[in-house]
Amino acid sequence: MSFEDNIRKVVPYTPGEQPKRKVIKLNTNECPYPPSPKVFNALEDFDASHLRLYPDPECTGLVNSIADYYGRKPEEVFVGVGSDDVLSMCFLTFFAGKKPILFPDITYSFYEVWADVYRIPYKTIPLKENFDLDDEDYMIENGGIVIANPNAPTGVSEPLEKIEKIIKANHDSVVIVDEAYIDFGGETALPLIDKYENVIITRTMSKSRAMAGMRIGYAFGPEKLIKYLNDVKFSVNSYTMNMPALIAGEEAMLDKRYFEQIRDKVVATRERSKDMLKKLGFTFRDSKTNFIFAKHERVPAKYIFEKLKEHDIYVRYFNKPRIDDHLRISIGTDEEMDELFKALETILQEA
Amino acid sequence: MSFEDNIRKVVPYTPGEQPKRKVIKLNTNECPYPPSPKVFNALEDFDASHLRLYPDPECTGLVNSIADYYGRKPEEVFVGVGSDDVLSMCFLTFFAGKKPILFPDITYSFYEVWADVYRIPYKTIPLKENFDLDDEDYMIENGGIVIANPNAPTGVSEPLEKIEKIIKANHDSVVIVDEAYIDFGGETALPLIDKYENVIITRTMSKSRAMAGMRIGYAFGPEKLIKYLNDVKFSVNSYTMNMPALIAGEEAMLDKRYFEQIRDKVVATRERSKDMLKKLGFTFRDSKTNFIFAKHERVPAKYIFEKLKEHDIYVRYFNKPRIDDHLRISIGTDEEMDELFKALETILQEA
Repeated sequence: MSFEDNIRKVVPYTPGEQPKRKVIKLNTNECPYPPSPKVFNALEDFDASHLRLYPDPECTGLVNSIADYYGRKPEEVFVGVGSDDVLSMCFLTFFAGKKPILFPDITYSFYEVWADVYRIPYKTIPLKENFDLDDEDYMIENGGIVIANPNAPTGVSEPLEKIEKIIKANHDSVVIVDEAYIDFGGETALPLIDKYENVIITRTMSKSRAMAGMRIGYAFGPEKLIKYLNDVKFSVNSYTMNMPALIAGEEAMLDKRYFEQIRDKVVATRERSKDMLKKLGFTFRDSKTNFIFAKHERVPAKYIFEKLKEHDIYVRYFNKPRIDDHLRISIGTDEEMDELFKALETILQEA
Repeated sequence: MSFEDNIRKVVPYTPGEQPKRKVIKLNTNECPYPPSPKVFNALEDFDASHLRLYPDPECTGLVNSIADYYGRKPEEVFVGVGSDDVLSMCFLTFFAGKKPILFPDITYSFYEVWADVYRIPYKTIPLKENFDLDDEDYMIENGGIVIANPNAPTGVSEPLEKIEKIIKANHDSVVIVDEAYIDFGGETALPLIDKYENVIITRTMSKSRAMAGMRIGYAFGPEKLIKYLNDVKFSVNSYTMNMPALIAGEEAMLDKRYFEQIRDKVVATRERSKDMLKKLGFTFRDSKTNFIFAKHERVPAKYIFEKLKEHDIYVRYFNKPRIDDHLRISIGTDEEMDELFKALETILQEA
């Protein structure tokens, strides 16, 4: 017997590299543009003397701004320290049963880490060869389901119909739809929270609202599920969101126009990047996200990944079965993508 | 069978009220003074365009500043979203066994909430009649121990010798010493991390560094325990600390002089408050914290609590066995305390 026996031992998630020197960073799906000018103003106007007090534990202003934006009730909104915090709380809250939860074999790799850390049994369901999800695979007994739509790192966007079938067929499980990338395209499941009592939708301000550094995520769900989620949140940490996050998040949400502008720019660059990557000999499923998950017809992904690093361009490579021949390339500015294409041209010629 | 069966149902912690209108707020042990001017400067200088990127997941600058300040290695330091986040991670990491963990019956009431949410068996050990802790009570089989020193809400500070006895006798358990209030007095157990491999010390910037609104807590421990803690942290959320927290925390840590100034002011006001409260007929154990846990010789605590609210003065009242005759009064500015004494005088005369 030793205290070691009482320790929860886990293999943590490995986030994409955050290099400290200046590089072209296309490896963690960040937004290439700064946040809304309203965020700058709010932070400038913030009186730091307020910091002596605890922040609003209910996050009223932020929750209300999200509810307003999407035409929902505040009671249907939950907020957290990035969608990772939101998803982690969802796993802890909704997957406390004994039956295995289900998610695809190729998806956000944090799902299995959360399952491990909270000792939740799980079963991964292989995607089809082309990375499509088969809703029929989710018609088996389970303790919960998590689907990222659009999926990461594949970029594949599933039709709402398929998602709804899964939710409908699994009324005895909570189904989490992780919509981290929904703002760049794809069909949201948000209206389904009026129709089904077992669905939670998670979102983030890290990608489309250019606020990865502020750590803000949110979720929508029927009031009852949001209540359960808040009970667990208030059992873990009463004050998860600090004052700068609360004010910046609210302002980012209010600036609809700026949000649409930068989103449209990312989407335009993505569409142009698809053409360029095709010309360079890459194949990929059509992406509705802010990244492209591509495979080269001839040159191994790992080789390209390493060579790009030598050019100070970081993309994401997953050394994992079924996807180790792919690169996940975040959409940067047009200038950054041009640098990428130039480097790829050189690398592919030399290979 | 329904999805309700898979839901983790809990009774959350109730934090002290955060009234939205202006009151004299002596109910959540916040600092009455603003954070260091260096924090103001750092936030003013912060370029919000960085927010588009993820923050440093290792929190290098903040961790190093804490390590430097206390003369420890960075590998012995862990940081989180307030000491609640740090403690929550500690419970999750170190108390994964089947034997009950131990903590006093009167202490920070979040301990039993964390034990509940993580389904950790626990046993509360009654403090002595005078709120002293008896180290002999902790010489029984257990899966871990948590001691707040100084204790909250009692304010009682235990000698280091007693804490060390508990750590030494329980080499098969991790012992967490919650030192949220240590900066205001009391003997820290920090040197014990060199001597024992089973001890974790937790701290916060919410009280003595006037940064409750920024959510920064930290812990010290032997490298091995800090490694386990980080593994769990990185299995829950890679990026818990946002950019403003990272820079503000570092600056607050560097400004030793300001920290000592405001701490000394709080301590001086506390000592004066003790005299005043005694004159008003209150009794209390000597406090080395930024609050006083006091009982009136004649008038019930609940009555005083409610009357003070009518005077727009908020203190904390716990409607719980053994302590429902006490009020926990945070130390405010001298002016705020004078208002309190004036109001108390009126209330007690009328009672």
